[in-house]
Amino acid sequence: MSDIPTATLGRVVTYVRVLEELEAQNVQQASSGDLARRAGVTPFQVRKDLTYFGRFGTRGIGYTVAVLRRELLRKLGLDQTWNVVIVGMGRLGHAIANYPGASDYQFRNVGLFDVAPDVVGREVRGLTIQHIGQLGPFVASVAGTPRQVDLGLLTVPAEHAQAAAQALAAAGVGGILNFAPAVLQTQDLLVSTPTGEREVTVENVDFLAGMKRLAFYMLGPQAGPTEETV
Amino acid sequence: MSDIPTATLGRVVTYVRVLEELEAQNVQQASSGDLARRAGVTPFQVRKDLTYFGRFGTRGIGYTVAVLRRELLRKLGLDQTWNVVIVGMGRLGHAIANYPGASDYQFRNVGLFDVAPDVVGREVRGLTIQHIGQLGPFVASVAGTPRQVDLGLLTVPAEHAQAAAQALAAAGVGGILNFAPAVLQTQDLLVSTPTGEREVTVENVDFLAGMKRLAFYMLGPQAGPTEETV
Repeated sequence: MSDIPTATLGRVVTYVRVLEELEAQNVQQASSGDLARRAGVTPFQVRKDLTYFGRFGTRGIGYTVAVLRRELLRKLGLDQTWNVVIVGMGRLGHAIANYPGASDYQFRNVGLFDVAPDVVGREVRGLTIQHIGQLGPFVASVAGTPRQVDLGLLTVPAEHAQAAAQALAAAGVGGILNFAPAVLQTQDLLVSTPTGEREVTVENVDFLAGMKRLAFYMLGPQAGPTEETV
Repeated sequence: MSDIPTATLGRVVTYVRVLEELEAQNVQQASSGDLARRAGVTPFQVRKDLTYFGRFGTRGIGYTVAVLRRELLRKLGLDQTWNVVIVGMGRLGHAIANYPGASDYQFRNVGLFDVAPDVVGREVRGLTIQHIGQLGPFVASVAGTPRQVDLGLLTVPAEHAQAAAQALAAAGVGGILNFAPAVLQTQDLLVSTPTGEREVTVENVDFLAGMKRLAFYMLGPQAGPTEETV
């Protein structure tokens, strides 16, 4: 499990989605070819990616859809609940707070934060938007319950991203999903753990990056993504 | 240019963002180490990634920030304007239509579409939301001007994603940025070109995929992204 390439991880997340679609259609067995076709990769790629996660499937029969889905979810850490706070309740923050299906994947919004006086105090899906200054006390209070705040979603403007990330780290949130169009300086984002300080884990989600990749692929048929890494 | 791995392309998009930050700070020269530190990769990775795009920089001096940025933008196809339509004007569609900075990167919203009677007819940043049934005639009308509709952003619910994608393909839009939590069946998404039919180019942007990767990395310090592919 230690050295799974990011690209593999992204594909395995797609396979889980494909397996869910198959389950919804009452399909019980699927070959690597079935998964590959729906995920847009080669059967070899599917088999290779899955070897990072264990030994699955039976030669000539394929994979049992429900079993493979459950095992992958477990190994991805998606059989547990992750408590999430959203920092930045503009349109994007609202879109995510209202995103249907997030709860299916065990991501639970527990807190919403902003700085704007006309936004703080509003209610979204049963949660009242709090001032960012309340982040530290809020996370400390949640930590007293069975679970802590695991992940912070950063949906603030780019110029406030680093400061907001530092507020999250200072509050003890160890993972950040960054939607702001800014590269976070993780060496300045340290979170205390029982075994000492460590850098916050940051994962970037960038609207424009997707558009930029797409624009590049559109330049010409020769410039499509390579099979190996899609 | 033909076989650039997706992961490399993603990192180069990040380097462009870093170069823009440096330019904003009036930094004129940068080493691969400078770029690497800000992008969160190794200097070797920076140098290796850039070799896909050409020969840049001077040994011992580094890169001229403005030149490298301009050249990368050109090779990424970001020195030209890409006309974009958004299909699905719920909260996410609105968030993207209002996303600041998108125009900096030459993505121009030219049309907004939905099906809901209470949404169609509303105005967002000077554009009136049209019914999806108008997509074909609209794209045909834009094609008569100097540029066509290049990219479609899919921000509809998962169960409508394939149908909406087919509407985009039928209208002649050859590239789709898919925000819906569904895997599009691209073999059914064919677009006519002067040299015949081809599959639409699809790039997926998935909120939950980012959260799932982050959750996996949070499982333990051994499970971080590997340097090679970050």
